[in-house]
Amino acid sequence: MRFDQHDIIVAPATATGGAIAVIRVSGEGAVECCDRIFRGRTSLAAAKPYTVHYGEIVDGGRVLDDVLVTIFRAPHSYTGEDGVEISVHGSRYIVSEVMALLVRHGARMATAGEFSVRAFLAGKMDLSQAEAVADMIASSSRASHSLASTQMRGGYSASLAELRAKLLNVASLVELELDFAEEEVEFADRSHLAAMLDDAAAQINHLCDSFRLGNAIKEGVATVIVGEPNVGKSTLLNRLVGEERAMTSDIAGTTRDTVEVMCNIDGVVFRFVDTAGLRDTDDQLEQMGIDRTMRALEQARIVIQMVDANDPEQSEAIVVGAEQTLIRVANKIDKCAASAGRGADADNTIYISAKSGEGVDELRRQLRATIDTERIYAGETVISNGRHYEALEHASRALQQARRALDDGLSGELLSEELREILHHLGEITGEVTSQDILTNIFSKFCIGK
Amino acid sequence: MRFDQHDIIVAPATATGGAIAVIRVSGEGAVECCDRIFRGRTSLAAAKPYTVHYGEIVDGGRVLDDVLVTIFRAPHSYTGEDGVEISVHGSRYIVSEVMALLVRHGARMATAGEFSVRAFLAGKMDLSQAEAVADMIASSSRASHSLASTQMRGGYSASLAELRAKLLNVASLVELELDFAEEEVEFADRSHLAAMLDDAAAQINHLCDSFRLGNAIKEGVATVIVGEPNVGKSTLLNRLVGEERAMTSDIAGTTRDTVEVMCNIDGVVFRFVDTAGLRDTDDQLEQMGIDRTMRALEQARIVIQMVDANDPEQSEAIVVGAEQTLIRVANKIDKCAASAGRGADADNTIYISAKSGEGVDELRRQLRATIDTERIYAGETVISNGRHYEALEHASRALQQARRALDDGLSGELLSEELREILHHLGEITGEVTSQDILTNIFSKFCIGK
Repeated sequence: MRFDQHDIIVAPATATGGAIAVIRVSGEGAVECCDRIFRGRTSLAAAKPYTVHYGEIVDGGRVLDDVLVTIFRAPHSYTGEDGVEISVHGSRYIVSEVMALLVRHGARMATAGEFSVRAFLAGKMDLSQAEAVADMIASSSRASHSLASTQMRGGYSASLAELRAKLLNVASLVELELDFAEEEVEFADRSHLAAMLDDAAAQINHLCDSFRLGNAIKEGVATVIVGEPNVGKSTLLNRLVGEERAMTSDIAGTTRDTVEVMCNIDGVVFRFVDTAGLRDTDDQLEQMGIDRTMRALEQARIVIQMVDANDPEQSEAIVVGAEQTLIRVANKIDKCAASAGRGADADNTIYISAKSGEGVDELRRQLRATIDTERIYAGETVISNGRHYEALEHASRALQQARRALDDGLSGELLSEELREILHHLGEITGEVTSQDILTNIFSKFCIGK
Repeated sequence: MRFDQHDIIVAPATATGGAIAVIRVSGEGAVECCDRIFRGRTSLAAAKPYTVHYGEIVDGGRVLDDVLVTIFRAPHSYTGEDGVEISVHGSRYIVSEVMALLVRHGARMATAGEFSVRAFLAGKMDLSQAEAVADMIASSSRASHSLASTQMRGGYSASLAELRAKLLNVASLVELELDFAEEEVEFADRSHLAAMLDDAAAQINHLCDSFRLGNAIKEGVATVIVGEPNVGKSTLLNRLVGEERAMTSDIAGTTRDTVEVMCNIDGVVFRFVDTAGLRDTDDQLEQMGIDRTMRALEQARIVIQMVDANDPEQSEAIVVGAEQTLIRVANKIDKCAASAGRGADADNTIYISAKSGEGVDELRRQLRATIDTERIYAGETVISNGRHYEALEHASRALQQARRALDDGLSGELLSEELREILHHLGEITGEVTSQDILTNIFSKFCIGK
């Protein structure tokens, strides 16, 4: 990908299959390029920006389509360049013919994310905002939408900018000292510096900590259902998602491989994983299924351990990690004697009938309560991007080094170097510091037309 | 469906899955409705029509998305009503949230085709043009696009209007006679009437005849490949479409069920049907496959009869219908002795190697030559809509009755009745004559948002 070009790029901005499709054109001369294939009441080149024009796209004597054309002029457009959006009938054939025609008139096909690259390079948005645009498009729940929206609106960029400004201040003081090194002045009070670094470290660690939540919301909260064969795990999965997604039967061991299903509970997407029942077995295929269950268990954020309410003693205790939540569920209360089992919820077991649905709402409520969306809806900065998390981790490590250098009374040169390192990593997030490689890596994951 | 309403309707106009999605709103008060959830530099209600506005869609304090909003004002819009198009980030979640918000502010979800119904009722297009819009969206080749485009632009409507005007003239003359029945005047010269009816019949029959071509282009030219087992039918299918669509092997009888694949040859879509090899068999499953082959054979427009070039005598002659084209293909020339077989193409056999591709271009050329697209590209009226064909058939039958009534010297009343019948059927096509039922039937097949 070359990012320094302002030539005319074209791509479909919508999926085909609807009533209309939109083709996006951007770059110097984009309006004039479109004008050459447009036949309407007015010339596009002479038209005011932000106006819409009805006319025909013509290829010589052949009319390709009746269209609506919108004109944008630099710098007030998504890319910051001159641009055109052509709204055509939503046929794949028409879209490709119009694009081919534009290419014959001087445009070229855009690469993935190239419109957003240009928006970034034109200073219309920083890197984390551009990434949020992609997250916005992919958002499928209130929580993931809210996360992306806060980031796209620059909430995250603002808190990072503040943090960076503080650290830049520290770095400047330290570097000023170096300039006057011969005179042995100490502009920066060491204890004051230490306090500032501690403050920055707390902020960065707070952001890092938020990644677990942000990532779970973006990817879906991994929730694995485990238990012995035939306790009703697949029936519960089907009940939770409201359709027959996993095959069920009375035969123990019906589920062999893990089955994964997404389901929205009150604005948060949960990624439920139904698993093969856990038991000792000589069957090689069943053992493979159990191995996959164990892997899913390790990666889960929430573990639903399911037992038969009529035989609650059957199950071994499952040990979950410090960052995992265990929810115990006793199933098949429809088959219990009236009061059996119920009293014993001192261990927070939820009694349900996956078959009839009884108790499942309480399970949903408890699942949903594990995810704190209030801070997200309030617009608090929560990291959901792995690249950002990595950069913050690097910054955090450099900060520890700087703090140690300070404690050990090491030279200003060393301290300054560590501070620059922190600033570098924070700058990577918003794109103050960047490279062709980073940009290519980020934007190649975008869709065409964005 | 109720068609007499001008309330505010909303629907997604694009498929989701792209960078952006467009939501379309139409009806009296549509601009004001959108204004209530829009926060931008200017008020939409005060904005000039055909201008684009950047801003946010807000739900109380919550920002749903950054959007571009285009304003349309009656009567210069697709529906002829006030309208708004909202361009949002292409997330299914955002689209549904914005639509739900609009519904809370007074809009309702549009039914399939409802925007086009309104365009028809507002006189923006006639019925056959509205139907062409749907064909336009579905078009996937130059020929089907050209067909839909001519119809959408009203070429068809114009020739029907001319025909109707002529017949209306005849009807008026006959009815005038009835008014003066007591005086036994004959305003209309009988032989002149007969000539006019014959002329109209010729035109209608010409249109009816064009349906075979139009339908084939719209649905794909049904082309069936038949022959004995293991002559290479599936290999030819794969060669024609350029990918491994049908399973092939050296074992006779590999293809059991018919396999259907679409393929564009120089602007025309062919629907190739690979079939089970024809032979006497006791295998019940194989016999079922052969039965399906026979059905595909009946429905085909083109029959490719395939033999092994090394054993050209193997095949019984296949008898095709008067409207079917038979193309004989001798395969496996790669296995032939150098000159064997080739000389014998007095019967127009095409010699090919499906395996190496030799000769397949000649087959493609001959297939393509069966479809006369020149008249379509020239904008000649060609019927492709089954409903139109049916109406024309009815008109044609009524015309024959009228002609007979004329010949038999029957009363003006009877003649007049038949003439009204013809006009009724022609009027159904463009919608001069219509009913709730017809409209519901037509537009319910449209996509949502059109």
